[in-house]
Amino acid sequence: MNELNILALSGSLRAQSHNTALLHAARTLIPGGLAIDIDDDLGRLPLYNQDLDGGTPPVVVAEFRARIAAADALLIATPEHNASIPAALKNAIDWASTAPEGLLRGKPVAIAGASPGPFGSVRAQLVLRQVLAAVGAEVVVKPEVTVFHCDTRFTGDRKLSDPCTADLLRELLDALARKIHPYTAAK
Amino acid sequence: MNELNILALSGSLRAQSHNTALLHAARTLIPGGLAIDIDDDLGRLPLYNQDLDGGTPPVVVAEFRARIAAADALLIATPEHNASIPAALKNAIDWASTAPEGLLRGKPVAIAGASPGPFGSVRAQLVLRQVLAAVGAEVVVKPEVTVFHCDTRFTGDRKLSDPCTADLLRELLDALARKIHPYTAAK
Repeated sequence: MNELNILALSGSLRAQSHNTALLHAARTLIPGGLAIDIDDDLGRLPLYNQDLDGGTPPVVVAEFRARIAAADALLIATPEHNASIPAALKNAIDWASTAPEGLLRGKPVAIAGASPGPFGSVRAQLVLRQVLAAVGAEVVVKPEVTVFHCDTRFTGDRKLSDPCTADLLRELLDALARKIHPYTAAK
Repeated sequence: MNELNILALSGSLRAQSHNTALLHAARTLIPGGLAIDIDDDLGRLPLYNQDLDGGTPPVVVAEFRARIAAADALLIATPEHNASIPAALKNAIDWASTAPEGLLRGKPVAIAGASPGPFGSVRAQLVLRQVLAAVGAEVVVKPEVTVFHCDTRFTGDRKLSDPCTADLLRELLDALARKIHPYTAAK
């Protein structure tokens, strides 16, 4: 069996992001047969503008859409900005969803999020589920991975040190793998 | 009495946007003593990144924050992208809210939205209310201005031609003016 390819998107653009660190942790925890490629630079995409989205979209957009198309599934880690998802993440989803091929319809997606406060991005994750439902993605329902007080769960060099979070991430990736198999079988 | 200044933000970046056209219509319908300045280019702001938001934020961000600070109130017109608000609008709100002075706390805001479909951006407006509540803005509750089937309500050169929408916009601006007065009185 070929390796299945998961594209992991970080909703945070800052270099020291715990959400990006969560994706790096996921890479060490994946079940056999899966590979994770991390995109932690969604800020390179221009803000969505229908006028830019004609026959020849910007090169960075075309490259991003090709990466989404090539992925068997997505893993998204999101911080919470003002009770919702960051603009950078919404922007990436809007560009992916407006591709003529409908890139997110039926795509398996797992979501997680980390925040330094006591809520662990729960509100952002609810908004993210609503947006992903609108684009027709197949989102993993459980477990919910809400990494609250995230700065207590990583080492100084941003390695995941909390076994409970590691167990949850492993469970999330297993659930995502189970979603991929019926999807790829239907191709 | 000095004229009160409303900054109008369009959530759409495309040139032929009905949401931007709605803001131009509002300009012709405002009660005496108010002036509307339109910002229809939120795409000039970089995607929010905390690493860019130190002591010296990007010039375009500083200028945008100064415009928000100088406004007595905001009027926002939003399309709906994937059951939520456009990334460009979320991004603008995130940059305004993260200014050290807390620019949106207590700021009077009126919202409206237009879409060519039958829902008139209702879901986007619910998300927008949630985000504006998180930043502490004082959002006008009624009327709800959901301009569905918007392409039937403007002339070919994007002038508002529907008297019902014009009445609703006038009512919205009156409600916004009533919100501004207690706010400025408390300054």
